[in-house]
Amino acid sequence: MPVNIPETKQPRVVIIGAGFAGLKLARKLYKQDFQIVLIDRNNYHQFQPLFYQVATAGLEPSSISFPLRKVFQKVKNVFIRIAEVEKIDVDKKHIETSLGTVRYNYLVIATGATTNFFGMDSFEKNSIPMKSVPEALYLRNTLLENFEKAVTLRDEQEKRRLLNIVVVGGGPTGVEVCGALAEMRKFVLPKDYPELDFNHMSITLVEANQQLLHGMSREAGEKAFRYLSKLGVDVKLEHKVTHYDGREVGLEDRGNFETSTLIWAAGVKGQMPGGLNPGCVVRGNRLRVNRFNRIDGFTNIYAIGDIAYMETEKYPHGHPQVAQVALQMADNLALNLFRIEQKQELNPFVYSDKGSMATVGRNRAVVDLPYLKFAGFPAWLVWMFVHLMSIVGVKNRLVIFINWLWNYMTYDQSLRLILRPAVKKGHSEK
Amino acid sequence: MPVNIPETKQPRVVIIGAGFAGLKLARKLYKQDFQIVLIDRNNYHQFQPLFYQVATAGLEPSSISFPLRKVFQKVKNVFIRIAEVEKIDVDKKHIETSLGTVRYNYLVIATGATTNFFGMDSFEKNSIPMKSVPEALYLRNTLLENFEKAVTLRDEQEKRRLLNIVVVGGGPTGVEVCGALAEMRKFVLPKDYPELDFNHMSITLVEANQQLLHGMSREAGEKAFRYLSKLGVDVKLEHKVTHYDGREVGLEDRGNFETSTLIWAAGVKGQMPGGLNPGCVVRGNRLRVNRFNRIDGFTNIYAIGDIAYMETEKYPHGHPQVAQVALQMADNLALNLFRIEQKQELNPFVYSDKGSMATVGRNRAVVDLPYLKFAGFPAWLVWMFVHLMSIVGVKNRLVIFINWLWNYMTYDQSLRLILRPAVKKGHSEK
Repeated sequence: MPVNIPETKQPRVVIIGAGFAGLKLARKLYKQDFQIVLIDRNNYHQFQPLFYQVATAGLEPSSISFPLRKVFQKVKNVFIRIAEVEKIDVDKKHIETSLGTVRYNYLVIATGATTNFFGMDSFEKNSIPMKSVPEALYLRNTLLENFEKAVTLRDEQEKRRLLNIVVVGGGPTGVEVCGALAEMRKFVLPKDYPELDFNHMSITLVEANQQLLHGMSREAGEKAFRYLSKLGVDVKLEHKVTHYDGREVGLEDRGNFETSTLIWAAGVKGQMPGGLNPGCVVRGNRLRVNRFNRIDGFTNIYAIGDIAYMETEKYPHGHPQVAQVALQMADNLALNLFRIEQKQELNPFVYSDKGSMATVGRNRAVVDLPYLKFAGFPAWLVWMFVHLMSIVGVKNRLVIFINWLWNYMTYDQSLRLILRPAVKKGHSEK
Repeated sequence: MPVNIPETKQPRVVIIGAGFAGLKLARKLYKQDFQIVLIDRNNYHQFQPLFYQVATAGLEPSSISFPLRKVFQKVKNVFIRIAEVEKIDVDKKHIETSLGTVRYNYLVIATGATTNFFGMDSFEKNSIPMKSVPEALYLRNTLLENFEKAVTLRDEQEKRRLLNIVVVGGGPTGVEVCGALAEMRKFVLPKDYPELDFNHMSITLVEANQQLLHGMSREAGEKAFRYLSKLGVDVKLEHKVTHYDGREVGLEDRGNFETSTLIWAAGVKGQMPGGLNPGCVVRGNRLRVNRFNRIDGFTNIYAIGDIAYMETEKYPHGHPQVAQVALQMADNLALNLFRIEQKQELNPFVYSDKGSMATVGRNRAVVDLPYLKFAGFPAWLVWMFVHLMSIVGVKNRLVIFINWLWNYMTYDQSLRLILRPAVKKGHSEK
């Protein structure tokens, strides 16, 4: 059964996913003569760079989630459908979703990336990923529950296991969550739990590479290492994890380490919808696209953002999976879809690298700009400004700014709630 | 097994429940020479009067929930334990909890009230109550999901069933949630869902009594009726509901009415811990107490707040179950526990009624003070001020104030997220 969407004369662009790429494309296209169908499993856009602050009780989920319908209020040619995409049927030129089928003239796959456990089942089963707002909230609840449990224990070994935290993966997410946890251990937890001795709590960051933040410069990696060490984080470079049963994590050639909490930030893979020719799928479960983000063998199917794999002279191994690439690909594709309709020549994608950054703790960051690298407090101010400006919605900006100011002045993340919505009518999970 | 709490020379006061009564008592007592054990199933205090704003996407749960440990930061004689209380064992002078046993010198029951379905199973099964933050969040999610579902439907009758909302119970909660929903229907929903016709959405308030807000004055009830009618709420006084299967609600002698969403705000009953003599329990599942909040037959067990039933000359049928009574009982009991230790005479409880109020819609309220009744915009300003001042935490006050100001200026509750935390490690409910 087709989903209830009016048929108009406008060519229909179906966008799967409302992340940075999909949302940007829809915002660019709706002013043109297209009918846009935006499909996501959530009714909100998630601002991924700040997931770690939700997980560490610094920000509310609502501050970094923006209702899609609010973005397109009063817009008549955007149709939002909250659904799971099951399969793409390229012959029938429609997609199959949990709500029914949706036909397309142009299909844009912007499904992004999800956690990659590299086939290690014990981590998939027992560790906590951080690739969605619900997962970040789950991490927040788990951390707080562990402290509550530790308070009631008499067994010192069990207590330490509950307090210890291991983070696997030294990219921006791993570095940022370790920094925030270290600040909590220093400023918040001893006040909240005077019964516990937080000298016994260890925070360990495990990275297989030779440096932290391996997408950034060597200087940035070294600075991050120094900042984290100063905060008391035990950074283990060139270490590999082998297994984790929920109580002990194995380190290759280096024995075991006891922890009840393992945060997995070690890698991503493309979130692939079904129905495409496996020949289109390359390393990292991504879709190979040409310079116009078109998938080989199709005239009307495109991929943008983290799921897209595009090789150029400057990026022979594909582009980095970051927000800037996603946003610029969306911009360029919006232009090209317009040009196709106008029967004009297409514009090839060229990535303009504006730099990258990561924050460590309450007032330090590392910033790599194309011609300048710097770190410390000035970098942190830049980090704050850039992130505030990238957030969707004036009120979100205001609320986040107040939260940051407040946390900065009081050394206190105040959202330490173990909070779960009720799950069934009349039967709340209190 | 006893729960891990240090034994000291201080007499131990165990408080069950961290609502208005329990939290206030703990805050009063910790400056005295007592050891206080505060037990709640949640790690936060909930500000009940604003649940309806969480349910209608006006406020975040975190704005009206306050972490208990933050209240008692650095305090050495308060021990917080997050646990379910299973049974009171008056002979052994301890309580049994999900964490183990806790012995007491003084036991204070402050478990509050929960939803009363008056034995009507079909409502318990199919309606949505609003007596906790998780339930309020559940209501928010359900309302938004219904609109998303309605967008995809072709069947007009089904669509109307999804849009219609019935609220049972015309007390403050029922009146306030109806007002907020009516404002949403007017200002927010048509912009978010241009595909839907909200002239077909009905909001119906069903009340068995002759007036709304029956704890307040007749004038207040009439004003509330007028305000709600003006907002397009269909108020049905002297109507009783008989059954509800999740699709149709039965009205006694008046046929059926189609709705997928029935909000139950019709009554409360005491949340009784097990193990007490049934002879102590009176009407409304409450515990009968004397003028010192002591339960008959015991020298060291007390009840305060909504669970306590105290008759006085002025209140021969017990005191109203409102925040003011709970706070004042806690104050008085703190004084009396101190006096018992000092072997002084006890102070009988005397309720000082400071008045009551309810808000209707975005800028109207009704206020009954002891010698003055008023309504409209001035009443709304008073309502705002009193609620802001009653909230725990400076930052909560600030964030709520900004939210209210924002919503007032933009006619827009912006937290329209269908948000559920992940439920299992590695398997998020996205």
